[in-house]
Amino acid sequence: MKPFPTLHLDTNICRNNIQKMNEKADRNSVEFRPHFKTHQSKKVGRMFRDVGVNSITVSSIKMAEYFIEDGWKDVTIAFPANILAIDSYNQIASKCDLKTLVISKEVVKKLDAGLSESVGLYIEIDPDYGRSGIPVGDFQKIRDVLDAISAAENMYTAGFYCHAGHTYKARSRNEVLDIAGKTLKKLTLLKEEFPDLPICYGDTPSCSVFDDFGPLDQISPGNFVFYDWMQVEIGACSPNDIAVSMECPVIEKFEERHQVLIHGGAIHFSKDFVEIDGTVSFGEPKLKHLSKDTFVKSVSQEHGLIQCSPQVFDDITIGQTIEIFPIHSCLTADLMREYHTENGSVADHMNGV
Amino acid sequence: MKPFPTLHLDTNICRNNIQKMNEKADRNSVEFRPHFKTHQSKKVGRMFRDVGVNSITVSSIKMAEYFIEDGWKDVTIAFPANILAIDSYNQIASKCDLKTLVISKEVVKKLDAGLSESVGLYIEIDPDYGRSGIPVGDFQKIRDVLDAISAAENMYTAGFYCHAGHTYKARSRNEVLDIAGKTLKKLTLLKEEFPDLPICYGDTPSCSVFDDFGPLDQISPGNFVFYDWMQVEIGACSPNDIAVSMECPVIEKFEERHQVLIHGGAIHFSKDFVEIDGTVSFGEPKLKHLSKDTFVKSVSQEHGLIQCSPQVFDDITIGQTIEIFPIHSCLTADLMREYHTENGSVADHMNGV
Repeated sequence: MKPFPTLHLDTNICRNNIQKMNEKADRNSVEFRPHFKTHQSKKVGRMFRDVGVNSITVSSIKMAEYFIEDGWKDVTIAFPANILAIDSYNQIASKCDLKTLVISKEVVKKLDAGLSESVGLYIEIDPDYGRSGIPVGDFQKIRDVLDAISAAENMYTAGFYCHAGHTYKARSRNEVLDIAGKTLKKLTLLKEEFPDLPICYGDTPSCSVFDDFGPLDQISPGNFVFYDWMQVEIGACSPNDIAVSMECPVIEKFEERHQVLIHGGAIHFSKDFVEIDGTVSFGEPKLKHLSKDTFVKSVSQEHGLIQCSPQVFDDITIGQTIEIFPIHSCLTADLMREYHTENGSVADHMNGV
Repeated sequence: MKPFPTLHLDTNICRNNIQKMNEKADRNSVEFRPHFKTHQSKKVGRMFRDVGVNSITVSSIKMAEYFIEDGWKDVTIAFPANILAIDSYNQIASKCDLKTLVISKEVVKKLDAGLSESVGLYIEIDPDYGRSGIPVGDFQKIRDVLDAISAAENMYTAGFYCHAGHTYKARSRNEVLDIAGKTLKKLTLLKEEFPDLPICYGDTPSCSVFDDFGPLDQISPGNFVFYDWMQVEIGACSPNDIAVSMECPVIEKFEERHQVLIHGGAIHFSKDFVEIDGTVSFGEPKLKHLSKDTFVKSVSQEHGLIQCSPQVFDDITIGQTIEIFPIHSCLTADLMREYHTENGSVADHMNGV
């Protein structure tokens, strides 16, 4: 039993998740370009290499540099180009086939003035998610950006990149299919307008529930490598598919309110939460019999408070540890900075020391 | 201009915050035992030493070890004792005057079986906050724990420790005074019952607005060292008191929705937010004229989206950087892992490399 909060990784579940998504991509003839922002680990990255993956997606320049160190040669930074960081793009592009995203011709022109190495540009498309990208139906704006890329010296068009983050609002497989289905219809129109440009598509809920990828040419989900409790609530996976869990010491028990204090708070789990039937949860205790009455009710910096069913409360002892599925594995891994695997070894994380 | 999200620390504001709280403690004859969980920095810690502070409060064993390395000799771990970590307590107590918290006689007995060094124990009191501690009016339970400590070999009673975290629900100075005033009344009864035991009291909102500390003997606020936008909304400080800000590159502008995309997301700010008039904010842009219409509307892993007033939107340019007050400086500092000061130097953070 670990005396401090510890992040465990079940590498068998993890490899299984990778294999299933890889086979699904193969079966549907879409290129698999997995996002590495969830695990941020060279060791986990190599599990993808083991099934034949050569092209990866990351969310930052720093993350691109981390994986290039481990021999990855085809890297997409799935974040709109930052014109303050042109030196970094040049440096990275001298070491690998670098792609990134753009949204406006203004940024394309500013990149053109500074890039000395060849960089592929995906035009980011906003599928009514409302975070980032050109609205999926704005063909004129898309053409303007395509023209700007054509006129530039060291850039080429890699295709379209689309993250349907609004599938995270779904609370069942059917809701995911409904939201993502609408996006696919719009992307079909985009494909008809620009048939030669590949479409790369991201989110884990869609990629987990789709049986038919329609107009998509490439997929780049990330979270599926570990999944988490949010994905269970969304309808994207089952609890058995979650590859990571936090082990937290039980510090105290509060009989009158059936609550258990653990060491494990916002600096371990993050403050991300999921609302289930009007109740907010910051983590899901990994019990033999999962219970809606038992959940992490609150987190502060180091404290976590588990609300328990009477039965669960009685079974917990001060000084034991308790396993908890994180709500959002990307953020939990980013905070914990290392993984303890079932064979006793420690897997790296980019933030680790 | 920094090409990546950067956490800045204004050491003049920081020193001023420290000096003001130190003078307030002096004026009220309460002992100042500041909490170091917000800054987690040896360099910032030394600013407290410069004004004569000798006793500090931390939130974890790891943090105690970090500050003991820098010569601190009187350290309270303000987290209930973890009986799985008795070896760590023994190790730390051999190097400094260590105190920590307890809530139940069960834990006192288990500590007694393992402690070989002398450790001071504060009995944690819950002032109707509902996180951790013995309910403030449960004198019988308090007496049971006191008896258990008396019967133990290597422990002594340090006093009562009380964190009134429910002041964070306040949205004005008067609301803080109202919530904290009720707590002080209850602690006055506790003091009457146990007049010989010092009471240590924590939260930044209370300590910022109190002019009279009533029955309190010691104070251990932490956040006031930097403050943040949440403390402004609570009514604990003014924007001019905030010592930290994030500098984030402006990546793209979305004209039709008056939104600006920045590099700066949940792995930089955390996902903590404050609700202001029904609107959720993840950060407050530091503008010459602060505006309710301009705020960080959402964060995902690396993305931040600023909703802007039309005027502010027009004034922002792609490729500039924008300064943003964090909502919760403790969590932002924990994620950013270093501070850039106004004289160009970098201050340490425990999580740094």
